[in-house]
Amino acid sequence: MAYDPGNIFAKILCGEIPAHKVYEDERVLAFLDIMPRAAGHALVIPKAPARNLLDVEASDLAAVMAVAQRIAQAQMKVFAAEGITLSQHNEKAGGQEVFHLHVHVIPRHAGVDLRAPLSYKEAPEVLAEQAARLKTALMG
Amino acid sequence: MAYDPGNIFAKILCGEIPAHKVYEDERVLAFLDIMPRAAGHALVIPKAPARNLLDVEASDLAAVMAVAQRIAQAQMKVFAAEGITLSQHNEKAGGQEVFHLHVHVIPRHAGVDLRAPLSYKEAPEVLAEQAARLKTALMG
Repeated sequence: MAYDPGNIFAKILCGEIPAHKVYEDERVLAFLDIMPRAAGHALVIPKAPARNLLDVEASDLAAVMAVAQRIAQAQMKVFAAEGITLSQHNEKAGGQEVFHLHVHVIPRHAGVDLRAPLSYKEAPEVLAEQAARLKTALMG
Repeated sequence: MAYDPGNIFAKILCGEIPAHKVYEDERVLAFLDIMPRAAGHALVIPKAPARNLLDVEASDLAAVMAVAQRIAQAQMKVFAAEGITLSQHNEKAGGQEVFHLHVHVIPRHAGVDLRAPLSYKEAPEVLAEQAARLKTALMG
């Protein structure tokens, strides 16, 4: 399947749409999901165009996962998380909604179920505050 | 948290417990989940001890993900999958049951929900046949 350059994450990458960024380098961008399944839910994406796991360059995938790891480690501290759940969806049947590769990194607490996908929209000021704390932790 | 060398995947790695292997190299092992959430559900693990995403070496994580990608590509063909769902759980609160890092790679079909985790045990002969087909596809 081809890459659609009009997808919303491509628009975030080119600055057309804002995002609550938590980390950025030459290959990878991470930002908070505006419809978090738990507080601090982050998305990690490659800057290079990739529809999903099926077509991503191995080096971009490695870079994305290295950042996902650092975000998970930071979330454990910032959100006093007791665990982390990663998920990554490919094609519509696999649960993919936005067709630019993204890895969900979600802080977890014991006994707290994840919200259903796309069931809750977080307030921008809450996301801004959480992103700032996560960004600081990632720089430390 | 420390690595527990008595976990079941460590036992698979040292040959103490059998597994329906689909891929193996010097760093990574992949085998079928005996309690699949869908047909062809595979697990990819590093050979080096790692409890989960929080402590794995970046190079092992990259190697695991490169294999997860190849498995996903093979599953699309072998199981005529229409999508792939990846999940990876860290610590009990994050859904982790076996404390050796593992990535779930699950073939999906449109309109077919995943089985609940640990809800269904597949017959060994079915797993053996699926593993053989996946192994062949991965060698091709």
